[in-house]
Amino acid sequence: MPPIDLPFERSEYDRRLALVRDEMAARGLEALFVTDPSNQAWLTGYDGWSFYVHQGVIVLPDAEPIWWGRNQDRNGALRTVWMGEDRSLGYADNYVQSTERHPMQDLAGHLRALGLEKARIGVEMDNYYYSAKAHSALCESLPDARFLDATALVNWQRTIKSAPELAFMRKAARISEKIVDGLLERVEPGVPKNEIVAEIYRDAIRGVEGAWGDYPAIVPLLPSGSDAAAPHLTWDGRAFASDEATFFEISGCYRRYHAPFCRTLFLGEPPDFLRRAEAALVEGLEAGLEAARPGNRACDVANALAAPLEKAGIERGARCGYPIGLSYPPDWGERTISLRAEDESVLEPDMTFHFMPGLWMKDWGIEITESIRIRDHGPAETFCNRPRQMFVK
Amino acid sequence: MPPIDLPFERSEYDRRLALVRDEMAARGLEALFVTDPSNQAWLTGYDGWSFYVHQGVIVLPDAEPIWWGRNQDRNGALRTVWMGEDRSLGYADNYVQSTERHPMQDLAGHLRALGLEKARIGVEMDNYYYSAKAHSALCESLPDARFLDATALVNWQRTIKSAPELAFMRKAARISEKIVDGLLERVEPGVPKNEIVAEIYRDAIRGVEGAWGDYPAIVPLLPSGSDAAAPHLTWDGRAFASDEATFFEISGCYRRYHAPFCRTLFLGEPPDFLRRAEAALVEGLEAGLEAARPGNRACDVANALAAPLEKAGIERGARCGYPIGLSYPPDWGERTISLRAEDESVLEPDMTFHFMPGLWMKDWGIEITESIRIRDHGPAETFCNRPRQMFVK
Repeated sequence: MPPIDLPFERSEYDRRLALVRDEMAARGLEALFVTDPSNQAWLTGYDGWSFYVHQGVIVLPDAEPIWWGRNQDRNGALRTVWMGEDRSLGYADNYVQSTERHPMQDLAGHLRALGLEKARIGVEMDNYYYSAKAHSALCESLPDARFLDATALVNWQRTIKSAPELAFMRKAARISEKIVDGLLERVEPGVPKNEIVAEIYRDAIRGVEGAWGDYPAIVPLLPSGSDAAAPHLTWDGRAFASDEATFFEISGCYRRYHAPFCRTLFLGEPPDFLRRAEAALVEGLEAGLEAARPGNRACDVANALAAPLEKAGIERGARCGYPIGLSYPPDWGERTISLRAEDESVLEPDMTFHFMPGLWMKDWGIEITESIRIRDHGPAETFCNRPRQMFVK
Repeated sequence: MPPIDLPFERSEYDRRLALVRDEMAARGLEALFVTDPSNQAWLTGYDGWSFYVHQGVIVLPDAEPIWWGRNQDRNGALRTVWMGEDRSLGYADNYVQSTERHPMQDLAGHLRALGLEKARIGVEMDNYYYSAKAHSALCESLPDARFLDATALVNWQRTIKSAPELAFMRKAARISEKIVDGLLERVEPGVPKNEIVAEIYRDAIRGVEGAWGDYPAIVPLLPSGSDAAAPHLTWDGRAFASDEATFFEISGCYRRYHAPFCRTLFLGEPPDFLRRAEAALVEGLEAGLEAARPGNRACDVANALAAPLEKAGIERGARCGYPIGLSYPPDWGERTISLRAEDESVLEPDMTFHFMPGLWMKDWGIEITESIRIRDHGPAETFCNRPRQMFVK
């Protein structure tokens, strides 16, 4: 066996597996097939950019998990997962993007060999990379099995972070701070956007003392001026212009753990409407941080934010946050709780969120955000420590 | 309407739409719902990192396409697609990651309003981001419609590149060359891997004269030594070591178009078995380039490569190439043709491939690859122009 540099102690994986197995038992699942790359990594340590082909982890109530994927990626599993060599399975390369056969037919054979041909099997119906075709091929190949929707079953077990997970997120936060410090210094009118993004990436991947940088699950987002109305535009080669606001949504990443962070920079003298929006947003953020305490609900944070914004005549149509932690593209969110008026999930200590009340209006936008941890008592801790404001230069 | 910087002339989009509509007609489809981000962008210009929520493009036989997605991302659509403001639709934010409602219920309402409640509608069953749940929610919401599997229908129309697409890929190739030149210069024993990746990203995003750099659809892959047995490992903070081979699989990206490229670097004096593998691989690559000509088949390239490898006692289990062009994460391949023994697709002028015969053995690996274009006559053109060898330092 090749040497393995697991991110966590084996006991941490035992903890995770126990949580998932308890939920499986509660739902009467005899097996769970996990395709979401972040769930695979959280359970087994598997790490590699191979989620563009079908792969997954089979979780069983009474035996170690099994990693299953393309033959060539089994070599990656042998180098990254905590289970032994006999707990990974590979399928032949001619299953890849074939019109004649589907990888799920191979998986079905393994499930049958495990005695699961008539079992109740959970599948992540709405998690990433479990395609409509994957599901239909699996159902057709195991007609006597019963497939139950286990969307986000694993994600929900991830909401409360362990101490070693929090330590990783704090390292990611140091990287996030470094990125934001660097761009605030470098952005000037006339500098092409891609030149700034090049330095953002350089800072992100170099990392900080004691924390090498991993790739974030979302690329830097930095729309300017009217384009800041659109939250998910990336960049191009045009220059930053005077008299425009740009928000920079970025995240440092340490061993797949994130601490997303956003600040807005205005080049020139900000107009009054933007100053007023900034003031309402900061007031709302601070009210939200106060409300983000154990026993309160997700909606309490959203409502605390909404009050000063409404007073300023600003109506946000979107949720203002989501849980964060370990992630792979395309999302650094965990996709369970949403900080919004209709979500009554109760906040618990060591839950972690990106509290991100972006304002994306018709022809302008501003974002000032914080990654936060719910403390044992009192208002939330922010992972990053930088002035909570729109910067002006 | 905000100003739009479309990558291509409107006539290019007309060409693409005509190809897709012809195929829809051949299959009797009254509508096609396209979720794959690369297919969305290819058809409409849509560009944004929003594919982590449900979104797509409705293609119709006799009216302009409609972009559909989350409300806040409609602002991005208004800034990137060629269709007018009335050809984009947004859904309310409380559909996002909700356990009570699904975005596909909103889509179904729009399809019904278009008179498609009993139509034959193509869906991309095995393309990215069309989840099992998305499909079941759509089917349940439109019980009288007939959904047909249109996996890769659009991808197949993308195989032959237009002149402006090839111009973008040539720009991407200049960036790929710059990345490889830089890393060959910088890698030394003792230099941490993430430091090299930081410079790879910086070079990639800065781009070259006349071509700003976009993010590649796959992050740099650079496993060393025994880890090079695993094709999809990323990086960490450990240092490069003497007497090890590392392959660097990277791609420049210009406006979402890629030119993947890989070279292997050995630090020290390579052992004989690696020299023999290199020689066989280069002979195979050159035989493959000779075979990659119009009228030949995908399998002819694979077989030409296999002969010298077999002679050297090396058996590859994997395909040796795939089409390339416009892509979003998680893959820079187009997922249609595979260069492998069982694929008899006929090669045509201006098809483009990543010809990538990586060798991933039990405890070592080597990759030397070329992005190629099928010429009108004769062997393939390579997009990059760098010595076809294992570099030694």
